[in-house]
Amino acid sequence: MSLLTVGTVAFDDIETPFGRAEKIVGGAATYIALAASYYTDQLKIVSVIGDDFPKEELDYMRSRGIDLEGLQVMRGEKSFFWAGRYHDNMNARDTLDTQLNVLAKFDPVLPASYKKSDYLMLGNLTPSIQKQVIDQLESKPKLIALDTMNFWMNTALDELMEVLKMIDVLIINDEEARQLSGQYSLVKAAAAIHKMGPKYLVIKKGEHGALLFEGEHIFFAPALPLAEVFDPTGAGDTFAGGFMGYIASTEDTSFENMKRAVIYGSAMASFCVEKFGIERLKGLTDDEITERITRFVRLVNFDAKL
Amino acid sequence: MSLLTVGTVAFDDIETPFGRAEKIVGGAATYIALAASYYTDQLKIVSVIGDDFPKEELDYMRSRGIDLEGLQVMRGEKSFFWAGRYHDNMNARDTLDTQLNVLAKFDPVLPASYKKSDYLMLGNLTPSIQKQVIDQLESKPKLIALDTMNFWMNTALDELMEVLKMIDVLIINDEEARQLSGQYSLVKAAAAIHKMGPKYLVIKKGEHGALLFEGEHIFFAPALPLAEVFDPTGAGDTFAGGFMGYIASTEDTSFENMKRAVIYGSAMASFCVEKFGIERLKGLTDDEITERITRFVRLVNFDAKL
Repeated sequence: MSLLTVGTVAFDDIETPFGRAEKIVGGAATYIALAASYYTDQLKIVSVIGDDFPKEELDYMRSRGIDLEGLQVMRGEKSFFWAGRYHDNMNARDTLDTQLNVLAKFDPVLPASYKKSDYLMLGNLTPSIQKQVIDQLESKPKLIALDTMNFWMNTALDELMEVLKMIDVLIINDEEARQLSGQYSLVKAAAAIHKMGPKYLVIKKGEHGALLFEGEHIFFAPALPLAEVFDPTGAGDTFAGGFMGYIASTEDTSFENMKRAVIYGSAMASFCVEKFGIERLKGLTDDEITERITRFVRLVNFDAKL
Repeated sequence: MSLLTVGTVAFDDIETPFGRAEKIVGGAATYIALAASYYTDQLKIVSVIGDDFPKEELDYMRSRGIDLEGLQVMRGEKSFFWAGRYHDNMNARDTLDTQLNVLAKFDPVLPASYKKSDYLMLGNLTPSIQKQVIDQLESKPKLIALDTMNFWMNTALDELMEVLKMIDVLIINDEEARQLSGQYSLVKAAAAIHKMGPKYLVIKKGEHGALLFEGEHIFFAPALPLAEVFDPTGAGDTFAGGFMGYIASTEDTSFENMKRAVIYGSAMASFCVEKFGIERLKGLTDDEITERITRFVRLVNFDAKL
């Protein structure tokens, strides 16, 4: 089934304790769509870039079955740009530069062929733009997931609360869940956020894994313990892409299947952090992905002997 | 099979965002033995207290099958005392006061009946005292586990390294594993620590769960997501007690059984944090424990459909 992704397609400068990469391809929609492309081939992107974006990168996305009809190219303009530097422990980072460029004028327009998408993944963007996309759909998707961040909680909380009423799955990190709910306990935070609209909540905890909540039901997936974390950029978006890609491919929104989707998303994220940017997400094989899922099974599997 | 526990039996003053408790019973050996008492009744403690320690608390320990022959009582002396205050997020705490009292002169002497214990849990203490206990044993236990802390890494590293060569399981938290190994990645930290002696390593991550390492094998157990964490004091010791108590009761040191022991230890720790001190560890029922283990199974169980 088709998965529509909305989010940035951009350039990043990244500095980690292991090295530095300049003007590499990034952006939420890029990571989401690439990760999802390993599970489903009916992928559509709504985004905006300048004419500085390399054609070969767009060709690569198309080669992975990603439909770019909804990707606007603004002539004479520059693509969105972000620069960041990670701290030694890789758990924190500083933003060094943000240049909105084309994003400042972004007015998402859905091509006719996008308006009946089965699944929708709204990457982190202005809540009003996320809502504009939902408003253009001709039929309600089977599942709408949304990512956001504390910046929008601080600057556009009313718009965010409005769009939260329209979605099914909220995917945010632990700090964001605490800020949005005003609760430190993630169990209490989940209960508060359910009341804002989303039936499902995924709380990403980085190296500490991810939690899936549906009412009283809780599922926990660890992150794979890795010897090397090279670059965490995009890991959260890659998780979301694997999660929604798996659900779209299986057409099953039961809690049991969402648990699997959390594991499949975590597996994609575990690849993402092994190299700079999207590098490791290119050319993965089915065997590599299966091996990674098997590692998750072994990591948490036990016989309780009750 | 018998489990010998060495560690403090003490008083604590505890301040959390939820309240304050003064001069309540604490100490590593207390938590370890109480938690273990739900799995095995052949429990022995080596420790030291002053004559200020309440008789009814000792009677309660005896009623749970804990042999106190090795618990020295120093006449006219005070028991070890610790006071601490937790930060709002409960993940960090400040030590407000430490009074060694009887601990300053502690010279552990094993009663004859203790010298052939099958399992040994060395709670956090001066490494030289931990070694003194091992040296007094007449036969090698089936499994020796040891807890320690960064204070001993800073002040008695040589003695600590010596005792690490004599043990099977090291149980420490993530910060301590990083300090001991000089590695940030816990996978690399585990590899470095294996070389120091312990075949098994348990890394406790508090609210983020625990990892068990044996060579290339890794098992992860989450902490139960709880709505209320009232007082984290003793949670690590309670985990260790449940872990070793379960292993002693099953007489099985296979990796498969140690995985279960990690879950059973985590279940005991999830009770511990619900009330002040040892309060919640008193009078648990089999049904309560089984229900807690079942929650762990549900929390992590998924069908990968590979």
